[in-house]
Amino acid sequence: MKLEISSESKHPVYRQIADQVHFAVNTGSLNPGDKLPSLRDVATAHGLAVNTVAKAYRELAAKGVVVVRDRSAYEVAKPKGKAGAHAAKAKADFGPSGRYAARGVSASKTEVHAAVDKLDQGVFPGSFCKLTEDYLTGDPDLCNVIHADGSGTKSILGYLHYRETGDPSVFAGIAQDSIVMNIDDLLCIGATNRILLSSTVNRNARQFPAEALAALIEGTEAFLAKLRGLGVDIHSGGGETADVGDLTGTVTVDSCAVAVMRKADVITGANIKPGLAIIGIASGGTCDYEEGENSGIGSNGLTSARHDLLSPYYRKKFPETYDPNTPKKLVYCGPYRMKDKLPGSSLTVGQALLSPTRTYAPVVTEILRQKRSAVKGIVHCSGGGQTKCLRFGNGVHFIKDRLMKPPPIFRAIQKASGTTPKEMYQVYNMGHRLEVYCKPADTKALLKIIRGFGLEADIIGQTVKTERKDGGNHLTLMHGKKALKYAL
Amino acid sequence: MKLEISSESKHPVYRQIADQVHFAVNTGSLNPGDKLPSLRDVATAHGLAVNTVAKAYRELAAKGVVVVRDRSAYEVAKPKGKAGAHAAKAKADFGPSGRYAARGVSASKTEVHAAVDKLDQGVFPGSFCKLTEDYLTGDPDLCNVIHADGSGTKSILGYLHYRETGDPSVFAGIAQDSIVMNIDDLLCIGATNRILLSSTVNRNARQFPAEALAALIEGTEAFLAKLRGLGVDIHSGGGETADVGDLTGTVTVDSCAVAVMRKADVITGANIKPGLAIIGIASGGTCDYEEGENSGIGSNGLTSARHDLLSPYYRKKFPETYDPNTPKKLVYCGPYRMKDKLPGSSLTVGQALLSPTRTYAPVVTEILRQKRSAVKGIVHCSGGGQTKCLRFGNGVHFIKDRLMKPPPIFRAIQKASGTTPKEMYQVYNMGHRLEVYCKPADTKALLKIIRGFGLEADIIGQTVKTERKDGGNHLTLMHGKKALKYAL
Repeated sequence: MKLEISSESKHPVYRQIADQVHFAVNTGSLNPGDKLPSLRDVATAHGLAVNTVAKAYRELAAKGVVVVRDRSAYEVAKPKGKAGAHAAKAKADFGPSGRYAARGVSASKTEVHAAVDKLDQGVFPGSFCKLTEDYLTGDPDLCNVIHADGSGTKSILGYLHYRETGDPSVFAGIAQDSIVMNIDDLLCIGATNRILLSSTVNRNARQFPAEALAALIEGTEAFLAKLRGLGVDIHSGGGETADVGDLTGTVTVDSCAVAVMRKADVITGANIKPGLAIIGIASGGTCDYEEGENSGIGSNGLTSARHDLLSPYYRKKFPETYDPNTPKKLVYCGPYRMKDKLPGSSLTVGQALLSPTRTYAPVVTEILRQKRSAVKGIVHCSGGGQTKCLRFGNGVHFIKDRLMKPPPIFRAIQKASGTTPKEMYQVYNMGHRLEVYCKPADTKALLKIIRGFGLEADIIGQTVKTERKDGGNHLTLMHGKKALKYAL
Repeated sequence: MKLEISSESKHPVYRQIADQVHFAVNTGSLNPGDKLPSLRDVATAHGLAVNTVAKAYRELAAKGVVVVRDRSAYEVAKPKGKAGAHAAKAKADFGPSGRYAARGVSASKTEVHAAVDKLDQGVFPGSFCKLTEDYLTGDPDLCNVIHADGSGTKSILGYLHYRETGDPSVFAGIAQDSIVMNIDDLLCIGATNRILLSSTVNRNARQFPAEALAALIEGTEAFLAKLRGLGVDIHSGGGETADVGDLTGTVTVDSCAVAVMRKADVITGANIKPGLAIIGIASGGTCDYEEGENSGIGSNGLTSARHDLLSPYYRKKFPETYDPNTPKKLVYCGPYRMKDKLPGSSLTVGQALLSPTRTYAPVVTEILRQKRSAVKGIVHCSGGGQTKCLRFGNGVHFIKDRLMKPPPIFRAIQKASGTTPKEMYQVYNMGHRLEVYCKPADTKALLKIIRGFGLEADIIGQTVKTERKDGGNHLTLMHGKKALKYAL
């Protein structure tokens, strides 16, 4: 290995050596049994005292990274088993219904997982987000997360609203959707601090003109500023807008969020075990840091929600907003116009479908500030809805027997589409979009913090030992008096 | 300001204080004239010796970040003018021809710049990429770059090839295009090290199935591994695949790249001044680290190139690959099928259009290793083609009077479309996609390094003092014996 020693670094030289060797071991440049270069060789090559190099090697030996052989010869230690690491369970075998597949959407993402499962699972397999060694600065005690997601087809609803009303300000909400789909995933690993974000807009410049683009870009900046005001340390590093009218009839809005974390601070999936309470935090209703009512829809399942709720009027008028290869009877086959009232709600159907995805970042920031050690796991009920938890922890039977009442938007979707309850929970959040796992004794303190933000939250279930012979996770979810059962 | 002092940090306490105050000044949490908390207050609040805090403040005073008033009261110093900072020139007023606009593509990106120009320009305005303060780790001597870009509509060519031949391996090249569009921009600021990358695929799952997705994801990993083998320190941190058939008929491939740099190592646009030589490095032909011939097309101008070269056969057969609102006479209105021979080349038209974008990362890594101080500026001739340089440096007349002969693909596009030479240079790289600016005396040494990679490279022009009264940049480009003139 090549050491880079700089006299301008703020780190003393022995620390530079220790960190670089440790990082090389972590990233596989040095393997168990490999000999480190001799003290004398390193000292000579870099014009250092032998003692300086020896201090670095001794520190690595004390940490168990290297072992000393005879005559001050050091070699990389054999691993003793990775703490916190457990096999990633990233397969989904429940099939989506024909209705989803016919629209070219897969709730289970089987194909994606098949391609991705072969890849390196990172430093903490089984975490909500992939974490890597600290490639960015090379510190063996730190790790990196780079996370990409976007508003998906929710941008089409923004487009429909914009076309019908001429009001581009709706895209500020789409910007929020794209950002929250990233940062609320990051919450699940405990990353709430020093987040750097970039946005990518792929647009049809003919359909999505300058005023809409300006609303989107300004909305991004405004939402980040709002988050900073709420104590969430996030900054924009720029973005890219591409004019790709042959790739999209409307607009695609994506973001990418990056953070550098201390490994010791990462919340992994490994502590989701039997014996915990599950706190659910509402996706809809009101809260202190949002204006007005939120439908709770989030940014998952919007392809289905849009087609199942909106009427054929949109099929005829906006052909740029759907795949012409989708069977006609599944395109905009619902009962509503955007301006119609949503049954049981103060919102219109358009307002409900466009409710910006609520972020839980201010809440989780405060929870981690006050009660970090009480948090055993956090799950963002995004793709996979209420079954998302199945991917985390080992040997767990999740029991969700006190779910919140589904908000009106989900009842309307179910009624219009005739989707089974079992499938509704696999696609939509159905009422809470964030779950915090903790010991039963800690629920009171955590709920107090959460409710301090004016959010509805409650214990929605608990974890017990798996009943499956193979030890795999499973989920029982009470829909009224009916028990719905799920497993990976 | 709130100081966070950790006894577990590898940095001594005085350094933690100095860095956090300095970072707060850089990011505007502390403003010129603001008083720092008193030595005694900080010491008491954190249980420190007054001398430790004093050491931190004295260091900041020595750097000019703060000034001492009477009785050991410190305040933030007034800025003395930002070194290296100069006004960003991010406007383009040359209009694209009706042909580009009619396809919904803007070479000058006027609308995008109008929306983006209002935003914060970062730590080094006028650099090729936006750089921010080091939000990721809070070190005042470091800065961050997060950069997003993608393969644009070149993915559609991959799709056409895949549909015609059934061969999904073509998407490995599209993965490369998306990555290189990011990392070769990073080269221009000197970021060649410790790069973390994420990929986002937005696909129509019906048209772009599992085998194509697998080829794309595996291609990404393979290209990153190849880069590492060539000495470029880049790692994947993950990615996202979204099934969004209502947003795209085919597939969109984007990437985001992040790096943490020492501020002292950043190559800004500020050193592009009169009196320099311009070295161009070929976009096409062969080189030691690529297999076979490269057409040089890169990933810019592909909407036009595709429609102008390919025949109406594709319009009839693949309606999912173009915007139905584009006038029919501009859709696939060229003379060729993908399998036809490209005149003057050993490649077919399809191979030429699909040539993966060459990266210059191995070359620039080596140049910076051997001759960093000789490099005054680097420009990636991406969007804007040979006029891209106009955005960098101040008071410069760029003279490009010894350009390389345009490769066959560009001659074929020009012939098929009847585009004027003046406009061809605004859209396509026309032969070289990277420019290195240096003193004339350094050209020999730099060319030796570049040619050591088997790349064609030469002095293609020079910079002199601007002749414009307003001091703005302008460009004279010799097309044969004809002088073409450009300005922002």
